[in-house]
Amino acid sequence: MRIYNFSAGPAALPVPVLEQASKELVSYGSAGMSVMEMSHRSKSYEDIHNAALELLRELMNVPANYKIMMLQGGASQQFAMIPMNLAKNGKADFVVTGEWSNRAYKEASKVLSAKIAATSEAEKFGVIPEIKEISADADYLHICTNNTICGTRFTQIPDTGKVPLVADMSSGILSEVFDVSKFGLIYAGAQKNIGPAGVTVVIIREDLLENEKAAKLPAFLQYKTHADANSMYNTPPTYAIYMTKLCLEWLKSQGGVAGIQKINEAKAKILYDFLDSSSLFKGIAAPSHRSLMNIPFTTGDDEKDKQFTKEAATEGFANLGGHRLVGGLRASIYNAMPTEGVQALVDFMKKFEAK
Amino acid sequence: MRIYNFSAGPAALPVPVLEQASKELVSYGSAGMSVMEMSHRSKSYEDIHNAALELLRELMNVPANYKIMMLQGGASQQFAMIPMNLAKNGKADFVVTGEWSNRAYKEASKVLSAKIAATSEAEKFGVIPEIKEISADADYLHICTNNTICGTRFTQIPDTGKVPLVADMSSGILSEVFDVSKFGLIYAGAQKNIGPAGVTVVIIREDLLENEKAAKLPAFLQYKTHADANSMYNTPPTYAIYMTKLCLEWLKSQGGVAGIQKINEAKAKILYDFLDSSSLFKGIAAPSHRSLMNIPFTTGDDEKDKQFTKEAATEGFANLGGHRLVGGLRASIYNAMPTEGVQALVDFMKKFEAK
Repeated sequence: MRIYNFSAGPAALPVPVLEQASKELVSYGSAGMSVMEMSHRSKSYEDIHNAALELLRELMNVPANYKIMMLQGGASQQFAMIPMNLAKNGKADFVVTGEWSNRAYKEASKVLSAKIAATSEAEKFGVIPEIKEISADADYLHICTNNTICGTRFTQIPDTGKVPLVADMSSGILSEVFDVSKFGLIYAGAQKNIGPAGVTVVIIREDLLENEKAAKLPAFLQYKTHADANSMYNTPPTYAIYMTKLCLEWLKSQGGVAGIQKINEAKAKILYDFLDSSSLFKGIAAPSHRSLMNIPFTTGDDEKDKQFTKEAATEGFANLGGHRLVGGLRASIYNAMPTEGVQALVDFMKKFEAK
Repeated sequence: MRIYNFSAGPAALPVPVLEQASKELVSYGSAGMSVMEMSHRSKSYEDIHNAALELLRELMNVPANYKIMMLQGGASQQFAMIPMNLAKNGKADFVVTGEWSNRAYKEASKVLSAKIAATSEAEKFGVIPEIKEISADADYLHICTNNTICGTRFTQIPDTGKVPLVADMSSGILSEVFDVSKFGLIYAGAQKNIGPAGVTVVIIREDLLENEKAAKLPAFLQYKTHADANSMYNTPPTYAIYMTKLCLEWLKSQGGVAGIQKINEAKAKILYDFLDSSSLFKGIAAPSHRSLMNIPFTTGDDEKDKQFTKEAATEGFANLGGHRLVGGLRASIYNAMPTEGVQALVDFMKKFEAK
């Protein structure tokens, strides 16, 4: 039995994608071998690689003056690479809206002078704070567009003027339409909305690739190395990129990002509407900044939360526990979670509440 | 039709492993989801993760005072991480035996004072040079145990005394028995003998994890971060690690590393014996330092080499072209290449020669 998987990442993937991958795993088309066995310099693999890059460009409407890279190491590696590559004045501003943006801030502090431009820590990260001032000489301002743990998101992308806007989009990318031209750099681990764990997408405005300090780094740590080599400087994670291509094709079949955004809004509304009407379950994030992807909630009682997670699991609803840092409950409903899954969860929550 | 894939990496994988992966791809055991969809914090995934680590320890007989990590980014990322993590005196020695060890040297030069302790460049990397002197205050001496491009290998591991020996084992790991206790650090991209591309194995002696300079690096770039977190500091490449586990189980079924070494020696002998007897094809590497994994050869005539690659491809022998830096021909015969494949290749070479 296939269960509904509400994991925050790695997360559910589209069933048709998994079925196609399973069929092609031993032997891909007429290649006489698995995708996993292909030389990354072979035509068969290069076609897959370039198709994934082109689909990303098309689906996100990425302007021509941006490079798209498929790297490894997840957002955590980017927490190091971004300050190492973008520092010119050696200063950067950070909007701290939860655990991950705080890590981005702390890790960058080891490389440059990092300043908190705004934080919602006092509100337990239940809202997105207003940015009152941006350092004019900052090399960039960093935000996390969607906060996986506390379930908030930037419903409006801030205007940072001449200061490049850098965004961790790990849990929001491809879930709603973004105007890429507002950003200097976008990065995202694949394991939520792009594909399986093991790929990291980085989209960078070309002028940010030119940096004298960065040019002295080991080649692997320079964005320019990977951008110039079409993400083939070293052996790419070929199979994860193949899976990414399949997931992007599936997304295109759903009407692209604009199409999935409508589905996502309707899907999230089912759960939020129930939370707003329930006398047992309560949502955590402020209604003004609610995430479409990660919906934390609670009964207000630790024991009851645990009981719910346990009973839900036996009914085929997996991974509904909140993040280990905050506890409570959370449903992550990325692109691949079908609407029926959310409806079924709400039906189960109603039953649980009635008891 | 399944073809014989002589790619230098990513390379052939064992057929039973691919078949099992295909069967389990959509739904793993009773999990009700694909391995790719599992939270890395779930029990089901943790079992896979720890089994892979334990199999590596068992198969390589890794002593208790060594940590094993599964990272990302391949050898290229290690070219940066090694000097950043091991520098104390800020000096390291390098044995340059080809393109990859030369890259390790050049990249380390950006971080510390790197010295070439020995090189076989004058012999076009066809032999392994003698190491006449090691800097007593070097933080480490770096070698590449098997040279994928030129087809040489260290048939004896040098004794570096108190200077830690660091080895790029990307194309030699798990192909023959190594005494891990002779090394300070071993690293290897998975895509030759471990599993699919996207995992990098690093084995480090615990005392080398303590380094005051390294402790100031961004967390992701410190080995200690990953060693302390059991390779779970950030989301690991879960599916590639699952595939690694399957490949290691297969290797165990072949009699482990000692068992596969015997098979590998016999397998390589088939091709080397033919090369030594052929009047058309000639091996490149010196017989004293021949690789068991990568066998470069040539007819001595560029056009004939190309003709051979082309005809071989139509007969189901793929990827026999030499590395783009050196040309010629090359057969990479990693653990998963069956003996029949090498025998069939030699039969085809005989036919080609007879024409």
